[in-house]
Amino acid sequence: MRFRLTPQDNSFFELFAGTGRILVEATTVLTEAIGSDQARRVELGAVMEEIEHRGDEAAHAVLRRVNSSFVTPFDREDIYQLTSRLDDCLDLMQAAVDLMVLYKVGELPGAVGEIVQVLSRQAELTAEAMPRLRSLPDLSDYWVEINRLENQADQVHRRLLAELFDGGYDAIAIMKHKEIVETLENAADAFEHVAHTVETIAVKES
Amino acid sequence: MRFRLTPQDNSFFELFAGTGRILVEATTVLTEAIGSDQARRVELGAVMEEIEHRGDEAAHAVLRRVNSSFVTPFDREDIYQLTSRLDDCLDLMQAAVDLMVLYKVGELPGAVGEIVQVLSRQAELTAEAMPRLRSLPDLSDYWVEINRLENQADQVHRRLLAELFDGGYDAIAIMKHKEIVETLENAADAFEHVAHTVETIAVKES
Amino acid sequence: MRFRLTPQDNSFFELFAGTGRILVEATTVLTEAIGSDQARRVELGAVMEEIEHRGDEAAHAVLRRVNSSFVTPFDREDIYQLTSRLDDCLDLMQAAVDLMVLYKVGELPGAVGEIVQVLSRQAELTAEAMPRLRSLPDLSDYWVEINRLENQADQVHRRLLAELFDGGYDAIAIMKHKEIVETLENAADAFEHVAHTVETIAVKES
Repeated sequence: MRFRLTPQDNSFFELFAGTGRILVEATTVLTEAIGSDQARRVELGAVMEEIEHRGDEAAHAVLRRVNSSFVTPFDREDIYQLTSRLDDCLDLMQAAVDLMVLYKVGELPGAVGEIVQVLSRQAELTAEAMPRLRSLPDLSDYWVEINRLENQADQVHRRLLAELFDGGYDAIAIMKHKEIVETLENAADAFEHVAHTVETIAVKES
Repeated sequence: MRFRLTPQDNSFFELFAGTGRILVEATTVLTEAIGSDQARRVELGAVMEEIEHRGDEAAHAVLRRVNSSFVTPFDREDIYQLTSRLDDCLDLMQAAVDLMVLYKVGELPGAVGEIVQVLSRQAELTAEAMPRLRSLPDLSDYWVEINRLENQADQVHRRLLAELFDGGYDAIAIMKHKEIVETLENAADAFEHVAHTVETIAVKES
Repeated sequence: MRFRLTPQDNSFFELFAGTGRILVEATTVLTEAIGSDQARRVELGAVMEEIEHRGDEAAHAVLRRVNSSFVTPFDREDIYQLTSRLDDCLDLMQAAVDLMVLYKVGELPGAVGEIVQVLSRQAELTAEAMPRLRSLPDLSDYWVEINRLENQADQVHRRLLAELFDGGYDAIAIMKHKEIVETLENAADAFEHVAHTVETIAVKES
């Protein structure tokens, strides 16, 4: 028989919900960054670093709690995986802002904004799903939608690649833009991986 | 004690065997694509999309059955992993055809055909191994050979890289060809990951 | 109740300790390679291949033992994962030397040496941690330090990217150097993944 969750265990859900909110915050910074100039991007890089730092602290708080709890709401390994995949989302969004600064790319192709819109929507859905982990209702609407958004990001990504190679950019500019766009596309994938972990947990608990 | 497999459970093996056949079909399209012109590649891209769609349906059928079965032939998580890794093989082969179309690469270096031959052989071996999952005889010949083929793909990959950088291509052409070749090499890796999952299952059941 | 470890099981720890020493050896070759010319790098590539071969043999010895042991010191899957991640470290360091040879890169930017120093330190720490798996004392100093080193490699990596794109290199040279540096950075990540697996094992056993 499965143990009832004690009030103490709820803090896991609060920690995951907190990480969800941090991801939404990161997408706000990312959205501003794509429309900013180099000077402002440097500042936003520092903001992103601070956000990423809070994400790390939330992850460590989860891991400390896993280590000190006798009973955890789901398998320890699933908690680890969820923590690690949420962390990937944040890392990749931070990496994208860092690359903009590092490569001094100037204005980005318009379609980059479309991928960032997808990430914003994915972050919102993830933030909404985290508190629902507590009761594990049917979360399939969440992961179906995250998956649809990832496919959308993928299509924009491919359109962007075609645009980059279509004669208007030199090789070095292509390399820079391509890496930024791939980092954003990887972030969209990372949100999908979070959703898969949530799906795995839900299937086990059902 | 391990439950005997009921007739109903056999459908898992039929689903995996079906995915094996889909992979072989994908390598046939890929083989034609590398020798085709842009117009034909566009058509083959559409064929590949239809094949990938059937692969997705097979994967969802497996997942639906996992969720609705009380007893599964192996651990649920191994079924998930096998499904997901078979899906990676298909995705990467589709991605390679897409990149040929997207980058309008024209004629490809001859060694690309060698990697695709490796993939064809890996797909055949995988298709042959899937029905053998039912009885789990000694499958080590399968994974040893898949591994050998992956090493072969890896060597061709490196030879191709040397050729690309050897003066005959400009930077943009190198980038395009390199990405196509890496996608194919990743597909060879993905077949190896399928074999590792099969190996893990076989070890557990032995 | 957990079975006491029998003397026979100790060989797992010896095998992991042996792999740790192989990793240290690989970093020595890598360190020499970055300061060498093309002719010497070709020779060191052959040395690295021989080292990698011994690493493979150690990995297979672990897997054979897992398959033939009734009781293993930790979960079979954790043993698999640790083996596979140690193998990644070695593969990536070998790949870096191979790329230097393949791309005939000549002199490398000085910061490449800084990343290789990080790898040397990570390999030493990993080699020291492997024998400690036997008794699983507090290994947190090990993984905290590995993580810190990975962050350091990451920062050097970013500095190097900025340097590469800063006007002194043409597009093709950037591509070559970038891939070598990324391979080394991935090796630093791979050492971090080894540490995470060790952490997971330690948490389960605690």
